[in-house]
Amino acid sequence: MKALRLPRWKSEAELVEVEEPTPGPGQVVVRIGGAGACHSDLHLMHDFDEGTLPWAPPFTLGHENAGWVHALGTGVAGLEPGQPVAVYGPWGCGSCARCRLGIETYCENPAGAPIPGGGGGLGLDGGMAEFMLIPDARFLVPLPDGLDPVTAAPLTDAALTPYHAVRRSWPKLAPGTAAAVVGIGGLGHMAVQILKATTATTVLAVDSRPEALAVAERAGADRTFLAGDGTAEEIRAATGGRGADVVLDCVGSDTTLAQSAAAARTMGDLTIIGLGGGTLPVSFFGVPYELSVQTTYWGTRPELIEVLDLAARGLIRSTVTTFPLERAMDAYRQLEAGELVGRAVVVPNDG
Amino acid sequence: MKALRLPRWKSEAELVEVEEPTPGPGQVVVRIGGAGACHSDLHLMHDFDEGTLPWAPPFTLGHENAGWVHALGTGVAGLEPGQPVAVYGPWGCGSCARCRLGIETYCENPAGAPIPGGGGGLGLDGGMAEFMLIPDARFLVPLPDGLDPVTAAPLTDAALTPYHAVRRSWPKLAPGTAAAVVGIGGLGHMAVQILKATTATTVLAVDSRPEALAVAERAGADRTFLAGDGTAEEIRAATGGRGADVVLDCVGSDTTLAQSAAAARTMGDLTIIGLGGGTLPVSFFGVPYELSVQTTYWGTRPELIEVLDLAARGLIRSTVTTFPLERAMDAYRQLEAGELVGRAVVVPNDG
Amino acid sequence: MKALRLPRWKSEAELVEVEEPTPGPGQVVVRIGGAGACHSDLHLMHDFDEGTLPWAPPFTLGHENAGWVHALGTGVAGLEPGQPVAVYGPWGCGSCARCRLGIETYCENPAGAPIPGGGGGLGLDGGMAEFMLIPDARFLVPLPDGLDPVTAAPLTDAALTPYHAVRRSWPKLAPGTAAAVVGIGGLGHMAVQILKATTATTVLAVDSRPEALAVAERAGADRTFLAGDGTAEEIRAATGGRGADVVLDCVGSDTTLAQSAAAARTMGDLTIIGLGGGTLPVSFFGVPYELSVQTTYWGTRPELIEVLDLAARGLIRSTVTTFPLERAMDAYRQLEAGELVGRAVVVPNDG
Amino acid sequence: MKALRLPRWKSEAELVEVEEPTPGPGQVVVRIGGAGACHSDLHLMHDFDEGTLPWAPPFTLGHENAGWVHALGTGVAGLEPGQPVAVYGPWGCGSCARCRLGIETYCENPAGAPIPGGGGGLGLDGGMAEFMLIPDARFLVPLPDGLDPVTAAPLTDAALTPYHAVRRSWPKLAPGTAAAVVGIGGLGHMAVQILKATTATTVLAVDSRPEALAVAERAGADRTFLAGDGTAEEIRAATGGRGADVVLDCVGSDTTLAQSAAAARTMGDLTIIGLGGGTLPVSFFGVPYELSVQTTYWGTRPELIEVLDLAARGLIRSTVTTFPLERAMDAYRQLEAGELVGRAVVVPNDG
Repeated sequence: MKALRLPRWKSEAELVEVEEPTPGPGQVVVRIGGAGACHSDLHLMHDFDEGTLPWAPPFTLGHENAGWVHALGTGVAGLEPGQPVAVYGPWGCGSCARCRLGIETYCENPAGAPIPGGGGGLGLDGGMAEFMLIPDARFLVPLPDGLDPVTAAPLTDAALTPYHAVRRSWPKLAPGTAAAVVGIGGLGHMAVQILKATTATTVLAVDSRPEALAVAERAGADRTFLAGDGTAEEIRAATGGRGADVVLDCVGSDTTLAQSAAAARTMGDLTIIGLGGGTLPVSFFGVPYELSVQTTYWGTRPELIEVLDLAARGLIRSTVTTFPLERAMDAYRQLEAGELVGRAVVVPNDG
Repeated sequence: MKALRLPRWKSEAELVEVEEPTPGPGQVVVRIGGAGACHSDLHLMHDFDEGTLPWAPPFTLGHENAGWVHALGTGVAGLEPGQPVAVYGPWGCGSCARCRLGIETYCENPAGAPIPGGGGGLGLDGGMAEFMLIPDARFLVPLPDGLDPVTAAPLTDAALTPYHAVRRSWPKLAPGTAAAVVGIGGLGHMAVQILKATTATTVLAVDSRPEALAVAERAGADRTFLAGDGTAEEIRAATGGRGADVVLDCVGSDTTLAQSAAAARTMGDLTIIGLGGGTLPVSFFGVPYELSVQTTYWGTRPELIEVLDLAARGLIRSTVTTFPLERAMDAYRQLEAGELVGRAVVVPNDG
Repeated sequence: MKALRLPRWKSEAELVEVEEPTPGPGQVVVRIGGAGACHSDLHLMHDFDEGTLPWAPPFTLGHENAGWVHALGTGVAGLEPGQPVAVYGPWGCGSCARCRLGIETYCENPAGAPIPGGGGGLGLDGGMAEFMLIPDARFLVPLPDGLDPVTAAPLTDAALTPYHAVRRSWPKLAPGTAAAVVGIGGLGHMAVQILKATTATTVLAVDSRPEALAVAERAGADRTFLAGDGTAEEIRAATGGRGADVVLDCVGSDTTLAQSAAAARTMGDLTIIGLGGGTLPVSFFGVPYELSVQTTYWGTRPELIEVLDLAARGLIRSTVTTFPLERAMDAYRQLEAGELVGRAVVVPNDG
Repeated sequence: MKALRLPRWKSEAELVEVEEPTPGPGQVVVRIGGAGACHSDLHLMHDFDEGTLPWAPPFTLGHENAGWVHALGTGVAGLEPGQPVAVYGPWGCGSCARCRLGIETYCENPAGAPIPGGGGGLGLDGGMAEFMLIPDARFLVPLPDGLDPVTAAPLTDAALTPYHAVRRSWPKLAPGTAAAVVGIGGLGHMAVQILKATTATTVLAVDSRPEALAVAERAGADRTFLAGDGTAEEIRAATGGRGADVVLDCVGSDTTLAQSAAAARTMGDLTIIGLGGGTLPVSFFGVPYELSVQTTYWGTRPELIEVLDLAARGLIRSTVTTFPLERAMDAYRQLEAGELVGRAVVVPNDG
């Protein structure tokens, strides 16, 4: 079969012929219907030296995947060939306290995982191929009616990550509160929709690009703010002086983090979602009292089920541009050039 | 001034002339802009004998009130004459552990309350008059922009009560869950809207009247069920066999309670909102495991602020038919005859 | 090997020779070090007719088990032969939303469980034998240092059940609150200790037997109440008129349930733990406002880990009387006669 | 009456004669039985210039106070002359959303408070005097039986602050978890006791002074760690590699904060309690995933009631050295010299 593989660090991916996988006990082979092309794949091609990560090429790219069950290993129950499924991407050991609750992102026994600190498309073969080997059936979530693999694939990452961030802040998002989303790109755009779908908080969108604010408005944002020096003060003014109860920083630069902290309410949440490389200096008098500053990484298996439910019911939507597997590298080129509308999804097989 | 007063038990209310109230220290007089006519007022006129309740007539009716600040007693800060306000109806002592958190419904020192177990329109003078004396400024909540006293008055009871019930169940209402509202009258109709506005749960509406189900659909219900012998099974079928995570029983008869329990999921919530006089026999094998069965009564002061925010932002709406104070008894007659569309609001003063 | 088996309904158990089990893929054989003798086993011997339960004899008794890993099936990771383990007793499908969180007690796909509605010692072979087959490695929890199988076995049921009940009520058990434990038998005695170990609530113990109250005092109860007509009033008096924030009814008869509801505080929890066959009629004015009435059944897998931690650190203790496998029926006879001190544990193998 | 007053910035306090206060409407005068001498008072004497703080001398020192109700202003209900009371120290406006829940520490309308950003002993007259004026009766909490003003006074700050920090982390402190207290001084010593009294977590104490670790052990710490370069690794080793679920940093220097973050578990809490002036740089890969980093300041009114309950029941204890009002400056001198055992409490009046 054909697969888009990263042959070595500091290299472009290549479309090559590889052997079809066969499932061992407890494993499943999925016929891929959609594999999202993610910015982090460009980092994998360009930015890592040998030894930086705990795993290495060669492997097939693609860590946002969905498709149909193709072949079941012995001992797998509850799945049928042909059934549409999404692939839960963070693969942990399955046995530690975190994994037992489906929080495989924070697996505490990475030595017991299929690959330590990685997963399909991240050290192991991912979904940019006709078939993908899933090392354990628990990583598959059946798609609800109304959701196809092309739409579902990018949700497994670009929606699951902001969903996880929003969900931890639900108790602080009663009516009368405000939540600010900083950076209205792929994740921020989903964050706005998720906030609107699951809470009645007032959603404030912040971005330095007017066209991104227009996207935020269409996604349901109640107020938009063109990012600048006075943004924190404007947010404070818009919230009766209190500040935003929750700030989701989808950029994560020094600048946005400082602004996000300044715009937050005492006892609020500031969640760092974006990998902008920034640092927030937290000190007793430097941030609002009792503001909870924390990072977030991907999401849990139960949360993926919830995200797919939201999408199947039309409560969240993502825009997708599709590419056949043969043109996968075009997807990455357009992604790099900033020419894409919405998420790029590579489609190795049709339904 | 004119006031609609209950002169004694087992009597119709009468529109009579009474003296205008003046505020003592810490008190406020409100110029009433809207006073909801509630079914329970009909009970007050017809169903009680002397000594049944801890308080007695004569008093002015009207326990769902909003208007404008008219006169401030000494020591009252933070309110201005002319400011539109809603009246928080359950009046507790203000000092016990419950009252300190704004949960005056469950005041644990009723002897310290303005009237034990009652309030304005319930033993003390209510809002069916030109002016109403509020015994403590903490019972007033400023109206947010976009909300007028006529619209706000019925929200203080008919929206606050289901809001309180929904709010306690938020942790059980993630995407993928289902909430059933049983009985789509004044409260059930608000419950549907509140569920839609504040969660992404699937809302199931149950009623024996097709026209009530049509109301539920317009209010946003995802599925409707014509109440009958098989309703619990239908709800189970509609929820993959699991049952509804939350059931809000706005009827509360023996029949609906039995059905509600049968339709609920293990670990779910069954909240008895309706005063239908029913009883649910709870035993180890008689209800789903770990179903939390509980009643609910009115709501808290912070919750009233949240309800007004939802309404001001158009996320919940109530239909209102207005009556001038002179025609207040017509409102009760139409209410009794079942001729009213939406909530009846008596309007003693215009804005 | 020897095993104490129930040959048919309405029959005494018999010590017979059976074949040693061997583990299939994903399975484990445990060398049993302790198997608790439980009242419910007496019910199994005496009270059921064919067709009442979804499973039937013959099977080996014993559903409270601990021992040492003996043999591992293919594909089992993370366990070593000789390692001491406790057996998590409620066996679900492992895949539904409940099981995925370790709440196998409320499995929503019982058709996918090893046996629908049962487990080891409940339809499948239990621990009253030299060896026991565990159908999935996830049902084993390693014993922490300081805990041996004899001590651990009864904790898997008699401590896990009240632990689960207490844990759900933690948010209502801040300092200044009170929790009443009604019925100081095996479970109530553990409930008192668990409350003392995990909260700073004031613990009130209720029983009709003075000697049981002495046990409660040794277990740490702050106040004891000899059960009688005035108990609810006494509890109210002892709590400043408020009532107990949490009532754990370990008896569950009509009488205790009525008393428990009367003794509870508004917004409190009343958890029905005991299988006394009683019914509580719940109606709007019949129980305190917003009292959450619910049953509880066994506990979750993560909670078993927590229970074993408490026991290993000496924060909860159970009294145990041991019997060799040959004398298992003596254990049941003494249990039936009420002659036992603490829990009876059958010991098929020494460490 | 005599009062220890700060006459101006950069000055020692002086014992002078002032007029006895009289209570206005809603106010109370308390006959002081204990006023804690706090390190921050030394800062007030030595470290501030005019204009740095929103308030200024002259005022009477003492912000940790307890005593007996002496005189009631008009309109005050629920208090009796002679009744022992503690003074809740953070004085807010009483009307904003925070104050309505008793969280006056984070009052959002400081212009409406008795003094913006201050309180008794902090801009207004405090408790180092025979009598103290309390500007609103809601700031008084009756002492439970078994607690006297001398013992209670320091609890209003030195116990309330760590209590508030521990309480927010309760949901992360189930059995099997670990909590590290860094810095075993006045607050850390209370934090250890509060953790032991209210949870079953394993308590790890960290300090650079062996004698402080001995204090921690007597307070109930399960493990102690002599602070050094390898402390974070030692804590990780002691927690099975996971790290501490909760870290309470009662020092708050650059060094301890870096160590505290390194010792914490993913999804844990790091609370900055100590005013050590340090800064923690928070970035995506710089701290454990989803570690909630936050400051904390004093505590809420309902929490003070809970703290007094713990102390009255002997579950937390503080060591106190008493001084008559005439020798108050000796207390500060010994405090500054580090010669004090436990908390210094000035006693203007005996019981």
